[in-house]
Amino acid sequence: MDYLKRLFPEAKFEPVDERLLVEARKRLDSLTKPVGSLGRLEEIASRLYAIVGGTACLSVSPAIFYTVAADHGVASQNVSPYPQEVTRQMVENFLEGGAAINCLTRAFGLALRIVDAGCAGKPFPADPVLISRRLGEGTDDFSVGPAMSVETCEMGLKAGFEIGANAAAFGYDCVGVGEMGIANTTAATAIYCAFLDLDPEKIAGPGTGASPEMVKRKARVVRKALGANAEAVASGNPLRILAALGGFEITEMAGIMLACAAFRIPVIVDGFISSAAYVAARAFFPGLKDYAFISHKSAEPGHMAVTEALGVRPFLDLGMRLGEGVGAALLYPLLRGACVIFNEMATMDQAGVSDRSG
Amino acid sequence: MDYLKRLFPEAKFEPVDERLLVEARKRLDSLTKPVGSLGRLEEIASRLYAIVGGTACLSVSPAIFYTVAADHGVASQNVSPYPQEVTRQMVENFLEGGAAINCLTRAFGLALRIVDAGCAGKPFPADPVLISRRLGEGTDDFSVGPAMSVETCEMGLKAGFEIGANAAAFGYDCVGVGEMGIANTTAATAIYCAFLDLDPEKIAGPGTGASPEMVKRKARVVRKALGANAEAVASGNPLRILAALGGFEITEMAGIMLACAAFRIPVIVDGFISSAAYVAARAFFPGLKDYAFISHKSAEPGHMAVTEALGVRPFLDLGMRLGEGVGAALLYPLLRGACVIFNEMATMDQAGVSDRSG
Repeated sequence: MDYLKRLFPEAKFEPVDERLLVEARKRLDSLTKPVGSLGRLEEIASRLYAIVGGTACLSVSPAIFYTVAADHGVASQNVSPYPQEVTRQMVENFLEGGAAINCLTRAFGLALRIVDAGCAGKPFPADPVLISRRLGEGTDDFSVGPAMSVETCEMGLKAGFEIGANAAAFGYDCVGVGEMGIANTTAATAIYCAFLDLDPEKIAGPGTGASPEMVKRKARVVRKALGANAEAVASGNPLRILAALGGFEITEMAGIMLACAAFRIPVIVDGFISSAAYVAARAFFPGLKDYAFISHKSAEPGHMAVTEALGVRPFLDLGMRLGEGVGAALLYPLLRGACVIFNEMATMDQAGVSDRSG
Repeated sequence: MDYLKRLFPEAKFEPVDERLLVEARKRLDSLTKPVGSLGRLEEIASRLYAIVGGTACLSVSPAIFYTVAADHGVASQNVSPYPQEVTRQMVENFLEGGAAINCLTRAFGLALRIVDAGCAGKPFPADPVLISRRLGEGTDDFSVGPAMSVETCEMGLKAGFEIGANAAAFGYDCVGVGEMGIANTTAATAIYCAFLDLDPEKIAGPGTGASPEMVKRKARVVRKALGANAEAVASGNPLRILAALGGFEITEMAGIMLACAAFRIPVIVDGFISSAAYVAARAFFPGLKDYAFISHKSAEPGHMAVTEALGVRPFLDLGMRLGEGVGAALLYPLLRGACVIFNEMATMDQAGVSDRSG
């Protein structure tokens, strides 16, 4: 927190006011339905109410999604069945509008921007859909040393924060984050192990489709990375850990999430890798938990141990493991539904519906 | 099936062509994502493709939702914490636009019609949103005899079928069904026990909020109903079982679902009570399983045993137990998302993305 105040001196980082959650619950209980019968939709509505500070009318529209892409030095350790150039190819696919996240954001009326946080090779040609915030041409291989310097990591947090702050300034009421980066399940695994004290062997999984041997290698690589960056990990300093084991996209996503909290905008977190950015951002500001919605339980087996360690329960469980922001996009309509219910449903009194007989 | 052919001589009831599921899978596997990484969204897309008979462009828009309401004689057995007049009050709330299902259908751009299948008391005044298909002023108390005659049940199936057929005729590409009816979790429980050979003590639950004693009474009432209608239950004849233990809304919902299958329209099934209509309809036409999407796992504890017995896995698990069609409405955006992904995503070839390195 002290670090955040130095990094973003004008921003306010405050947890939501718990009293607003109670106030929201009161309104929900007055509506024409049995108490609590809308289940987790009521949890969503209560949290949205508390995030915006208790307004008469909840809104998550318009919304903007960011798919943040970068490359990873650790890809050289043969931890993914796909070659590194797929990161770049997929960014081109995003810019062409042909990926899953393009389809879902179109279907749900969401703005989408692609952030190049540092893909290998040259910068992409300018494109109205592209936000270029390159921290390099991919991270260094963290199995032998830090993925990036502390200074670069700070630049990434700032770049992400600025993106989130712009979303707020341009009137967006909701932000979604997802990612693309070959080998980034390995980075996410390392981050979980360092921040949450979990075992690489338990958290490493097949990602985009690694063979069992590859998964074992992944765990070994992460174990090695924790050793190569032992001092940073032992420091408990979030910035140092994130610099040591992070990815450029993970760092910028963490910055976006922190901005959402600072500007009181709900942020929808995608799957396995986005949750790693959330873990890092939460280490800087624990109150982030109130502003972030962990959208879905990834098919990546380690994700469940992670969400349990965090004490959060994802809303959807659809067996997905694509990334990009697809899970976050699928949760979006539920947030929208929760708003309309909160805003527009009649109360028992208004509708003249008999409350419980006895 | 023979019965359905007699009842609807012009309708075709055919299971989906399994080859189309394979064809859909092939297209999905060619898209720019790891194979299977969209999880259950791919299952949705494949089934939609098979339902419509394999078209180039999947669609679930426009969609229409039906909230079917009726009263239950068994309400007199004190099985619900709410008085029977709440059914009517909630129908009025639906017509005024103040209920949860109104909010969600507005949020997602879905048409909504309220069907009066037989609420206690007088018919409602004419209303553009109301479809009046009254089978009576509530069913008889099935704990002492059949809920309705076989002739009335047949009328209900026909009325529902006609509603679904109209949806098809008017160009809807998707139908959702939900319900309202005080005491109808008791009817649904009886239907599950009779059709799926389950124990009332295992399936009876709190519904809108019954106390533990009330839940026990509910189980006893269902046990008694199975005895009072033992001959119908033992006959294995779906029409006789539905007449003995059904509700007017459950019967008409079953008719709507059968029409959706006959006209090859995907139908989204809401929660605990709607699933009972699905169970009855599936007893008439087992192929219905391919056309119906069981939207969510109800918070009603017995629902899990039911879906397991049916071999279906609901898509959402949000702890909801409201009915009306709310769970079905929340699944709708996922169907829409699955269509857009199937229709518009680029293939690996188109986008020039490297396939697995090997």
